[in-house]
Amino acid sequence: MEKNRLEAFSDGVIAIIITIMVLEMKVPHGSDFVSLKPLLPVFLSYVLSFMYVGIYWNNHHHMLQTVKHVTGGILWANLHLLFWLSLFPFVTGWMGENHFAAMPAGLYGLVLLMAAIAYFILQKSIIVSQGENSLLSKAVGRDLKSKLSSLLYVVGVLAAFYSPILSGLIYAAVALMWLIPDSRIERVVRN
Amino acid sequence: MEKNRLEAFSDGVIAIIITIMVLEMKVPHGSDFVSLKPLLPVFLSYVLSFMYVGIYWNNHHHMLQTVKHVTGGILWANLHLLFWLSLFPFVTGWMGENHFAAMPAGLYGLVLLMAAIAYFILQKSIIVSQGENSLLSKAVGRDLKSKLSSLLYVVGVLAAFYSPILSGLIYAAVALMWLIPDSRIERVVRN
Amino acid sequence: MEKNRLEAFSDGVIAIIITIMVLEMKVPHGSDFVSLKPLLPVFLSYVLSFMYVGIYWNNHHHMLQTVKHVTGGILWANLHLLFWLSLFPFVTGWMGENHFAAMPAGLYGLVLLMAAIAYFILQKSIIVSQGENSLLSKAVGRDLKSKLSSLLYVVGVLAAFYSPILSGLIYAAVALMWLIPDSRIERVVRN
Amino acid sequence: MEKNRLEAFSDGVIAIIITIMVLEMKVPHGSDFVSLKPLLPVFLSYVLSFMYVGIYWNNHHHMLQTVKHVTGGILWANLHLLFWLSLFPFVTGWMGENHFAAMPAGLYGLVLLMAAIAYFILQKSIIVSQGENSLLSKAVGRDLKSKLSSLLYVVGVLAAFYSPILSGLIYAAVALMWLIPDSRIERVVRN
Repeated sequence: MEKNRLEAFSDGVIAIIITIMVLEMKVPHGSDFVSLKPLLPVFLSYVLSFMYVGIYWNNHHHMLQTVKHVTGGILWANLHLLFWLSLFPFVTGWMGENHFAAMPAGLYGLVLLMAAIAYFILQKSIIVSQGENSLLSKAVGRDLKSKLSSLLYVVGVLAAFYSPILSGLIYAAVALMWLIPDSRIERVVRN
Repeated sequence: MEKNRLEAFSDGVIAIIITIMVLEMKVPHGSDFVSLKPLLPVFLSYVLSFMYVGIYWNNHHHMLQTVKHVTGGILWANLHLLFWLSLFPFVTGWMGENHFAAMPAGLYGLVLLMAAIAYFILQKSIIVSQGENSLLSKAVGRDLKSKLSSLLYVVGVLAAFYSPILSGLIYAAVALMWLIPDSRIERVVRN
Repeated sequence: MEKNRLEAFSDGVIAIIITIMVLEMKVPHGSDFVSLKPLLPVFLSYVLSFMYVGIYWNNHHHMLQTVKHVTGGILWANLHLLFWLSLFPFVTGWMGENHFAAMPAGLYGLVLLMAAIAYFILQKSIIVSQGENSLLSKAVGRDLKSKLSSLLYVVGVLAAFYSPILSGLIYAAVALMWLIPDSRIERVVRN
Repeated sequence: MEKNRLEAFSDGVIAIIITIMVLEMKVPHGSDFVSLKPLLPVFLSYVLSFMYVGIYWNNHHHMLQTVKHVTGGILWANLHLLFWLSLFPFVTGWMGENHFAAMPAGLYGLVLLMAAIAYFILQKSIIVSQGENSLLSKAVGRDLKSKLSSLLYVVGVLAAFYSPILSGLIYAAVALMWLIPDSRIERVVRN
């Protein structure tokens, strides 16, 4: 039951994050196509963040399936992850409004990186609580996909000072890589 | 259980969408009737969108009743639907603030069309996952109502460039058509 | 199960309404007591609306305990109630920002009245679906409290054009009357 | 079941509070580091409030585990707690935007104090409903941690008129004290 409430709370927070991001796409005052045009980068950065939050919800959901007992450590590691996810609306709005300028594109990548680290800490907390040879530990394996993602976020942050568009493309590439559902956990759970 | 969390997450996102739309109806500074008057089109477009989001919630709820196992495809098709629904507050606010001007009324219809297509894709994903002769497939039948709606959205989008008010009336007519609960699924589930 | 999802969705919408109302209390730019002072009426109208939404959540919760099967009529009557509740943040903000001026205080009462009527329709839909001698029908009885409330809302709306403060006091009095939990349903359910 | 709905509603409200606070961190118009700098105090006050709301969610969750039957008193005491928590986004925004000025830092502490009192009232309502020798009563004991917190909030409010930064540090210290999960209830529940 304890786990259900953790899931319900996380689902609530993630559902709100994914939805209030759209509030950063301010309704323009004009009614013609010209007044809509400056919103294109805001829309693109919204699409990117929507994909990321969706991916986090999906993976979070799979990972928690392996949890039986929620420890204090898992609880705080989960809140820590939600904290970084809660910054998505801010960095999405900033990157969009400034048409993928250097600083905003770099900060966006930094928040992606912090969320990835927070996810990694949560994963570790769950594995520790499950003891050696845990279900999740087997499912995760060497976790190359996460390591590659984190590396690409760092590359994206650095690239922002040369070409913020390149950063955006790197972030989008990582998102696409994750859109393929993580079948590792599903496979291990089924066995 | 997996399905419960998908339902809970979708319910959360839809509940937030239907509620934050009201934030686009900005509180006027004056306190007389005159300052309230320009809000009438915003209110009307809010009522229309409230009906649409309510209809989607209702139909989504009925459709998911037939689902037993959530596949990766269903999961992403569901997020794709939520994405288009999440644009409702934006297009509702834009159409309302511009008193049903051409472009905003056209874009509103386009988002309605995209949401309808996303709903169709989700429906297909569920039918595919259930195999031939699925419950949902029987319930949906030839799906004339959805096809007619999509056609009317296209008509509404085109009509916006002649008379945006006409577009609004077409969208309202489609909504009224859907207010009658979809008894097809209920009937098949009961048998 | 169907009922659970209706409850969950309603809870979600009501939770969002009660929480986003606080966004109408705009953070002032100054940092002294003087800049806080004009927010007092906004705060008072927020407290009033918080009480009302809390009361609706509480009564809604008790009423739905008597429901076994959710019909299409109940579903739409419920959405209709949520629609009027969703206007609370708007009328709360308008009444507060204009320091309880005539029109805003009158509109606030009108929305209270519409929500009360919507609640009455939902109650009727549930009683109809339960057949004669229904549990809820017995619990509600002659429903004097609701009738008195509606009458007082009408008085409050009319009073707004003489003294908006009087309207506010009437609305507050009705809220206090409802703060005493409705033991009628609890009593009948227990028997 | 009644308790489940109370938990779900509270979770919903707390999830929304913790997430909409980020909306007070307005996206700056410039795209350089200079335009981000004034947001630092807003960010710090956001982090502080995120921790507090997380702590309240966690403790609320533990406390409700001991509840079997929800009385009217518990229900209203719970809504009273949610009311004070709902003011967090406002005081967080005000304190942040004014770079920890005296009045905002004092008001922040006052809301912390009121939330602590509301939590205490909710705790009392639960203990009263459980009768003497209740589970929660044993778990809470002399409740020194809560008493110390309340005292420190008062000190923080008074300190705001000498050094608002000191107030912020006191509030942060109390939060850190609570980050250690409250094992008292867990221990008693297990026995």
